[in-house]
Amino acid sequence: MSNSFGQAFRLTSFGESHGRGVGGIIDGCPAGVALDLDFIQAELNRRRPGQSSLTTSRDEPDVVEFLSGLFEGKTTGTPIAFCVWNAKQRSGDYDAMKDLFRPSHADYTYYHKYGLRDNRGGGRSSARETVARVVAGAVAKQLLKDLGITITAYTSQVGPIKADKPYASYDFSTIEQNPVRCADPEVAIKMAELITSVKAKGDTIGGVVTCVVQGAPVGLGQPVFNKLHAALGSAMLSINAVKGFEYGMGFDVDHFGSEVNDVFYNDNGLIRTRTNYSGGIQGGISNGEDIYFRVAFKPVATILMEQQTVNKQGEPVTFKAHGRHDPCVLPRAVPVVEAMAALVLIDMYLLNNANQA
Amino acid sequence: MSNSFGQAFRLTSFGESHGRGVGGIIDGCPAGVALDLDFIQAELNRRRPGQSSLTTSRDEPDVVEFLSGLFEGKTTGTPIAFCVWNAKQRSGDYDAMKDLFRPSHADYTYYHKYGLRDNRGGGRSSARETVARVVAGAVAKQLLKDLGITITAYTSQVGPIKADKPYASYDFSTIEQNPVRCADPEVAIKMAELITSVKAKGDTIGGVVTCVVQGAPVGLGQPVFNKLHAALGSAMLSINAVKGFEYGMGFDVDHFGSEVNDVFYNDNGLIRTRTNYSGGIQGGISNGEDIYFRVAFKPVATILMEQQTVNKQGEPVTFKAHGRHDPCVLPRAVPVVEAMAALVLIDMYLLNNANQA
Amino acid sequence: MSNSFGQAFRLTSFGESHGRGVGGIIDGCPAGVALDLDFIQAELNRRRPGQSSLTTSRDEPDVVEFLSGLFEGKTTGTPIAFCVWNAKQRSGDYDAMKDLFRPSHADYTYYHKYGLRDNRGGGRSSARETVARVVAGAVAKQLLKDLGITITAYTSQVGPIKADKPYASYDFSTIEQNPVRCADPEVAIKMAELITSVKAKGDTIGGVVTCVVQGAPVGLGQPVFNKLHAALGSAMLSINAVKGFEYGMGFDVDHFGSEVNDVFYNDNGLIRTRTNYSGGIQGGISNGEDIYFRVAFKPVATILMEQQTVNKQGEPVTFKAHGRHDPCVLPRAVPVVEAMAALVLIDMYLLNNANQA
Amino acid sequence: MSNSFGQAFRLTSFGESHGRGVGGIIDGCPAGVALDLDFIQAELNRRRPGQSSLTTSRDEPDVVEFLSGLFEGKTTGTPIAFCVWNAKQRSGDYDAMKDLFRPSHADYTYYHKYGLRDNRGGGRSSARETVARVVAGAVAKQLLKDLGITITAYTSQVGPIKADKPYASYDFSTIEQNPVRCADPEVAIKMAELITSVKAKGDTIGGVVTCVVQGAPVGLGQPVFNKLHAALGSAMLSINAVKGFEYGMGFDVDHFGSEVNDVFYNDNGLIRTRTNYSGGIQGGISNGEDIYFRVAFKPVATILMEQQTVNKQGEPVTFKAHGRHDPCVLPRAVPVVEAMAALVLIDMYLLNNANQA
Repeated sequence: MSNSFGQAFRLTSFGESHGRGVGGIIDGCPAGVALDLDFIQAELNRRRPGQSSLTTSRDEPDVVEFLSGLFEGKTTGTPIAFCVWNAKQRSGDYDAMKDLFRPSHADYTYYHKYGLRDNRGGGRSSARETVARVVAGAVAKQLLKDLGITITAYTSQVGPIKADKPYASYDFSTIEQNPVRCADPEVAIKMAELITSVKAKGDTIGGVVTCVVQGAPVGLGQPVFNKLHAALGSAMLSINAVKGFEYGMGFDVDHFGSEVNDVFYNDNGLIRTRTNYSGGIQGGISNGEDIYFRVAFKPVATILMEQQTVNKQGEPVTFKAHGRHDPCVLPRAVPVVEAMAALVLIDMYLLNNANQA
Repeated sequence: MSNSFGQAFRLTSFGESHGRGVGGIIDGCPAGVALDLDFIQAELNRRRPGQSSLTTSRDEPDVVEFLSGLFEGKTTGTPIAFCVWNAKQRSGDYDAMKDLFRPSHADYTYYHKYGLRDNRGGGRSSARETVARVVAGAVAKQLLKDLGITITAYTSQVGPIKADKPYASYDFSTIEQNPVRCADPEVAIKMAELITSVKAKGDTIGGVVTCVVQGAPVGLGQPVFNKLHAALGSAMLSINAVKGFEYGMGFDVDHFGSEVNDVFYNDNGLIRTRTNYSGGIQGGISNGEDIYFRVAFKPVATILMEQQTVNKQGEPVTFKAHGRHDPCVLPRAVPVVEAMAALVLIDMYLLNNANQA
Repeated sequence: MSNSFGQAFRLTSFGESHGRGVGGIIDGCPAGVALDLDFIQAELNRRRPGQSSLTTSRDEPDVVEFLSGLFEGKTTGTPIAFCVWNAKQRSGDYDAMKDLFRPSHADYTYYHKYGLRDNRGGGRSSARETVARVVAGAVAKQLLKDLGITITAYTSQVGPIKADKPYASYDFSTIEQNPVRCADPEVAIKMAELITSVKAKGDTIGGVVTCVVQGAPVGLGQPVFNKLHAALGSAMLSINAVKGFEYGMGFDVDHFGSEVNDVFYNDNGLIRTRTNYSGGIQGGISNGEDIYFRVAFKPVATILMEQQTVNKQGEPVTFKAHGRHDPCVLPRAVPVVEAMAALVLIDMYLLNNANQA
Repeated sequence: MSNSFGQAFRLTSFGESHGRGVGGIIDGCPAGVALDLDFIQAELNRRRPGQSSLTTSRDEPDVVEFLSGLFEGKTTGTPIAFCVWNAKQRSGDYDAMKDLFRPSHADYTYYHKYGLRDNRGGGRSSARETVARVVAGAVAKQLLKDLGITITAYTSQVGPIKADKPYASYDFSTIEQNPVRCADPEVAIKMAELITSVKAKGDTIGGVVTCVVQGAPVGLGQPVFNKLHAALGSAMLSINAVKGFEYGMGFDVDHFGSEVNDVFYNDNGLIRTRTNYSGGIQGGISNGEDIYFRVAFKPVATILMEQQTVNKQGEPVTFKAHGRHDPCVLPRAVPVVEAMAALVLIDMYLLNNANQA
């Protein structure tokens, strides 16, 4: 179904931007895991609006409440339901736009597909839905941590400004020290300046998130159709505003096989590859090297500038969005990318267990 | 499961490169469709080895046999099983390599995951598996054709040589007239020259396939996790050698929202967008514009040059592959990309029907 | 996954008897349906504890709150999340039993499978989980009503007392007029007397629910493995305390084919069968006749009598349950059977739509 | 999808009674299992027509051919495709009936649902489809055998003649020694006599199969909707001609809780129950006791007697089936029941592995 993700560790999400709240059910979480609720809340805080001057100034606390599946602090193997209740609802901001189709939003397609739509802030198509992903991803991260698997994402491009050195050359501990969540502190400053100037104009700007999974064992991923990178791609492409996904050498295809084949060698008993153009995945299955991939985000569709469009009656109209919006989704997208990667990795880990008699 | 694709129109594939054959079962195909078996065979012929000097010289006829699901030439609503029997099996070519892990192949990951592997020509991880996709895709294409939906792919990059004009500027009827399947006849010549020179060296080269879906109605795609482009991405990334997927503006993210928002207008009663940076999909749902995307392929991992690697015992070994292999996967990947796109589109069409009470 | 039911109209449920509440998410409900919330609450009231002297005296209001998926009273095609918050929580009743395995409960199997268990009132294995089914079933019933499909269940056996005339001989409007929900008012009185006497002893008693689906069109049900009756059977057997399912002639197998073959005839243009030993389903697909089936319920496992068992340490212990429990699950099971039948029927209806190109 | 069964160990079946053959794909079988092909063929032989005077006299060899998933005799973790090619095809027997709807067959429902039907011998709705189940079940049995789990079914009722002693009182080694596959040799003789007399009249007769699963560990089964007995029920009800399923005390509900609660005790360190009214399953999860259940089969619909019906035009017609048919499905249903039980058990075993982090 369209609102569920994963097979063995499955998130089913619900909720709209201006309804009661956004939440989900995790089905398949192993029992006996002592959840660190503070960690989960901290992950949510990384995603929340109003965290810096570079994001929307909407100040939503986004506190998660768990509704089931825990007993005395541990998972019980039953569904873990949770909800982040919507606090401030300025849906009045949207009244003026309820009958028109905002460009590059889902207004028109939802309206056409369903015959009606929740016009309060994008409803279900709002990026607020990713709240559920971050909570579930934080649960997954805790399971992965016990397996020695870590996931780190950072903003690697904003507009023309790139942090494009090899990820291994960066000190990941700096990522959370700048509001852009860029792994290169100097580039981060330039990115922040660009976002600030874009925000001042009421415009928006696109970018790229790079993500690295370290510590994954050999063997995760299910051939043929549920390859590890196909699942990661599907996960990333399901995030609002994502337009592309590449892993390993990606679109940098102007190479000969003799250049980019990853040669195996024996590293004191461990079989490794000397290079990693494969991005840690061969034949759809992790090979023990770092898994890395890049995710392209378009500029946020909501701009605070006058735009042309049509209304439900097909009449041309001019409008200008008001309210508080992100000039650049990248800083807040970083934890969402990590969360989706975590959901994929734990799912593949559990699916792999199901392959063993 | 890992060997099934789609929800309402589901392909489950089977088979290895050097076993009995490669085939599949299509479950969910509507009844009463008079299948054009010649068309299906023609699609297979577009994928088959030995079709030109640019591909492997293995000359496999690849004839499909249908085993069930048809009665008096029409689909009956029951599973459509089919098989392409493997004809020539020179698995002896692989004997020398059966105990070593070929670089950038799935040898090592399969062996590690499963504890053993079918070492005859890659077994299940061989691109020969895509035979099943092309057959099922050809069935899907016939259903889509009746719905007015067409799918066209072409090679848009080989190494550094690009056919990077907007797809609308090309005459698609030329694609099948050159062995590269490039939409630009002049560029096709250069691509062919490059592939020929790469082949002469025993090397391989990567590239990009561009695909365009035309005629899709508004409303295809399932939010939130099964967005149309997420399904397309998952489909493409499941194809052997694919490293990246982008749709619409893709990784070309250095733009402002004010530049790339697709403005709606009323085109004689039809609501359309003036530009199509969205790639025909908004909020995960088709908006009636052309759907277009690009798929990155790495160079084929099998090169006819000496390479280092390790064997099962972890010992360093030097080897050189023999036999007949593709110097560039792009020309034969074109029908595979189209087939996977067709599977996604028909699945979304049928799923959309299941949304209607 | 184990906590989801249905393919096209899917309920994922959550919650424990003594946690925050019990609820669920419905994914796949068509858009534009004006939900009658009063009807849904009324269905819940049919299931709620404390509704008569024959049921547990726990008086829980069981009010449903919808959390998402509705806009201005209509479904939007997005997930419909809901919760029935747990009101009174006398989990102290269970403290004395938290370390022992109650006979014929799920205590032992849950503890063994998961390594721990929520011991407050059965946790997830409590029949309170059926709250979610009744809410989702009530939504399904509204969709079915618009399609002319009605579902009626009644208590047809309590201990040795049976209402075993053909269902067609009963006036279904009497069912809700007696607390047993028996279709035969005279038999209902005897059933009530039996339940009352069983309750006085602190014991419990089993029984049977009969269910009839009327108005289903020809063609619902998916061969081969998801036959309509297989889905109904799976649905019923997933209800707490159910031990058997039969439809049509069921276990009454001492018949010749020549006796029980249902002969077709032309009833003024409509093809019908003169008898209905098939139970309205042939080859797994509805044939337009009434669909009827019977569901066997064991006596409730919680009895207010001294019982032997062992504790977690494997030591023999004697215990006696306290609190308020149902002496017979049948009266409250009737709406649950109907709800599960409704979930199956709407799922099959929507799946059938997905079969049409 | 409707032609797939199981989640972790999934069979997708295909084929019609008079087409090319009947087969399937097993996806999810663990790697490294040395399949005993003779055993698989032996299981097929237990199902095959013409094996005794009590079954149809059609003499079909039913030899299975494996098409993929095996390498040097072992499973590789890839899809195991197989086919039993149809040998003799006397579809001419069905020509006279191609335009009419045979009573209590799937002719009418298939025709109505799909708009056409394969009229050669029932096509996909033929019990010949169970060939695929027996092959897949035989693979599952080998995995289960290594886990110490055995599955034994026998005919426990034919018409009014019952073998209704507790299963534990029978010597299972006698089952295959009589053509009825009854666990009671003396009752078997009476059953055989009845079937012979029924056959002489061209009529058919119903019955019951009892099945016992021994050696299952505690913990198999997925609450809430995929309970072990719900999956078993769904599996059994998907078999042609099945009308009912009960496990443990089943429909024998005229009991008090105090009578049928299964008391736990410590059997030298193993927690067991003194009785087994639960049928080895509590809360949907196996508890380590024997799992037992009963499956009701209606009489075969094809009788060699004159019958009334209507044709596609709705006109009344009289017809009489010819050819060779089973007078009683029970003897050949026994291996099918076992096979489906095996598919459920191995699926639950693997799913349980997926629950473990």
